[in-house]
Amino acid sequence: MIYLDNASTTKMYDEVIEEYNNISKNNFFNASALYNKGLESKNLINKSRNTILNSLGATNFDLVFTGSATEANNMAIYNFSNRKNKNFVFSMAEHPSVFNVAKDLQNKGIEVRFAKLTKEGVVDKEHFKTLIDENTCFVSIMNVCNETGAVNDIKELVKIAKSINKSLIFHSDGVQAFLKIPVNLDNLGVDIYTISSHKVNGPKGVGALIVRKGLNINPYIIGGGQENNKRSGTENVAGICAFGKAVSINFLKLKSDYDKIRNLKKFFYNELKNIKNFVCYTYNESFSPFILEGSFLGVKAETMLHMLEEYGIFISNGSACSSKKQGNRILESMGLNFAEIESSVRFSFDYDTKIDDLKYALEYIKKVNENYLKITNKGK
Amino acid sequence: MIYLDNASTTKMYDEVIEEYNNISKNNFFNASALYNKGLESKNLINKSRNTILNSLGATNFDLVFTGSATEANNMAIYNFSNRKNKNFVFSMAEHPSVFNVAKDLQNKGIEVRFAKLTKEGVVDKEHFKTLIDENTCFVSIMNVCNETGAVNDIKELVKIAKSINKSLIFHSDGVQAFLKIPVNLDNLGVDIYTISSHKVNGPKGVGALIVRKGLNINPYIIGGGQENNKRSGTENVAGICAFGKAVSINFLKLKSDYDKIRNLKKFFYNELKNIKNFVCYTYNESFSPFILEGSFLGVKAETMLHMLEEYGIFISNGSACSSKKQGNRILESMGLNFAEIESSVRFSFDYDTKIDDLKYALEYIKKVNENYLKITNKGK
Repeated sequence: MIYLDNASTTKMYDEVIEEYNNISKNNFFNASALYNKGLESKNLINKSRNTILNSLGATNFDLVFTGSATEANNMAIYNFSNRKNKNFVFSMAEHPSVFNVAKDLQNKGIEVRFAKLTKEGVVDKEHFKTLIDENTCFVSIMNVCNETGAVNDIKELVKIAKSINKSLIFHSDGVQAFLKIPVNLDNLGVDIYTISSHKVNGPKGVGALIVRKGLNINPYIIGGGQENNKRSGTENVAGICAFGKAVSINFLKLKSDYDKIRNLKKFFYNELKNIKNFVCYTYNESFSPFILEGSFLGVKAETMLHMLEEYGIFISNGSACSSKKQGNRILESMGLNFAEIESSVRFSFDYDTKIDDLKYALEYIKKVNENYLKITNKGK
Repeated sequence: MIYLDNASTTKMYDEVIEEYNNISKNNFFNASALYNKGLESKNLINKSRNTILNSLGATNFDLVFTGSATEANNMAIYNFSNRKNKNFVFSMAEHPSVFNVAKDLQNKGIEVRFAKLTKEGVVDKEHFKTLIDENTCFVSIMNVCNETGAVNDIKELVKIAKSINKSLIFHSDGVQAFLKIPVNLDNLGVDIYTISSHKVNGPKGVGALIVRKGLNINPYIIGGGQENNKRSGTENVAGICAFGKAVSINFLKLKSDYDKIRNLKKFFYNELKNIKNFVCYTYNESFSPFILEGSFLGVKAETMLHMLEEYGIFISNGSACSSKKQGNRILESMGLNFAEIESSVRFSFDYDTKIDDLKYALEYIKKVNENYLKITNKGK
């Protein structure tokens, strides 16, 4: 099996599953229980919290564990949605867990503004600048785009936004950036940042909202007052510890294997470039090395996907995070035409992806592509 | 270790952990991915969904997986909180994930009414009846109380409520009832029901909201449209399947071991009754066999709890689901006095609890109790 859909979800490392098992067996206690074993569970959670904050250089931030990054994004945005006569700024590339919340605000009569994308897939800074004013209370711009791997210059966007209105809150969905590109939250300038466990070889069902110290955030899910009264629900001790384990492993890989992944992507792109009906506007060496998006003109993405699965190769047509597709908002915003969009596929890698995996995939991508074009008489 | 705090959280069965591992290794795919492996993950989720609905005899219901029962309770209540000029009815015994949402509604200016409890801990039906009127849009009454094991006569309460106002929505938090007492949702009459995985030997971080077919419920967490557009966020396939596994095991135990647990509780209660400073108003053979609450007058609950931990015995003073205590609302509502409340402890059992565990616990409960009374000169 050649799994090239890691931007959709990753496989848990064996050590991560082992951590989950150990905690489930030995530290299953309720982390809010008053006895010492409960306190031990709480300490394990805090250890994981610190591991994650450290991996992001986030000394000025607190971290709230949630049940998913989607929940964390909802929590971040809805925290500010009751402000009167304010506007909200998002990009056209946001993940559905941000974009559909933005649409919900719009449906509720709140003014929402969307920043355009460049053809490469990043937020158009000039357009972004025109959207910010003294009534902008909240900005959410993703760090790395899940469909294209495009990296937004968050530091610069924060500077632009805050130079116009220093009281606005800047949130960034960091799900595809976390441990995929170097991120230092203290330097980035954002107020709130979202991350996910299952995108970094941790368990599904765990995410986190990372919030600048001193910024008051209300819980989105209320009840027993867990997570320092920021997110109620019995703490998922094993899931949180397994997340911490995955982070500690990938943090080392970010240091040691980053260039390896960059080179893999470069190799893969250079091979694909030789295929005459392949087009790609989103290859950039400064983008995430884990994602490559492109189109095999004339070959429908779903067909490519299903035919490659026959050979044990798993890829995606756009983000599989979304179970309901509505065309492709992101590629449309980048100005791609219909033929480019309907044939656009996404390859996404993992720290464990090997060059031989890519060579195998390339062999079948070429075969499927050629055969499909031949069959549909579009080869010549 | 004698773990008698199962109402707080349970230990996952080994088979449940194994299921989690198997799915994490072999079916880690995103359940919304378009390839067949994604569909397999989705099918596994649906299998778990059916197992759970079947275990509740819920042929007229749909089930939405959430990240916790707390989230499910929030989702249920907030779905109806934008109705104008309506009132909401809760009981004084509700779990914080219901009670604190009720308080939040109250703070937002919504009329909220609380039903009193009897000394035994059940909802006072006569008082309840006086709270319902034509403007009541939502009622939430827990099935089994997490602190006392008291079982509310939900079927009768639904009948009372709907005879006054047939358009109201009746929700019940079934977390401590699910697989602890026989429940048939088709017969119960409720519209919405909440359950949790980690209270029935499944993983933490998974819950569900069970909704009568045809009743339209909006998502509380929005994004990619997972769970039939009712709850977004990448599906926690392994967690959901492990939950299903735990349910299938406990469903058999509910049939085979229910009387065993009832007898264990009866034995335990009869032994405790002989301790002269022990008082208990909540022993009733029709209550949950898994929970026994009572007070060792003169012995502070926290002291009892910590001293028993020295001997490897784990109990609770009230619900450890709540990390912030505020006196004890439930026991106060039942009319217990301060001395009774400050010495109230909760023992809660599991299908695997054995009579020898209880004998061992009894030995040390008696010792701790006597020594404490002796030291504090309250023995005579």
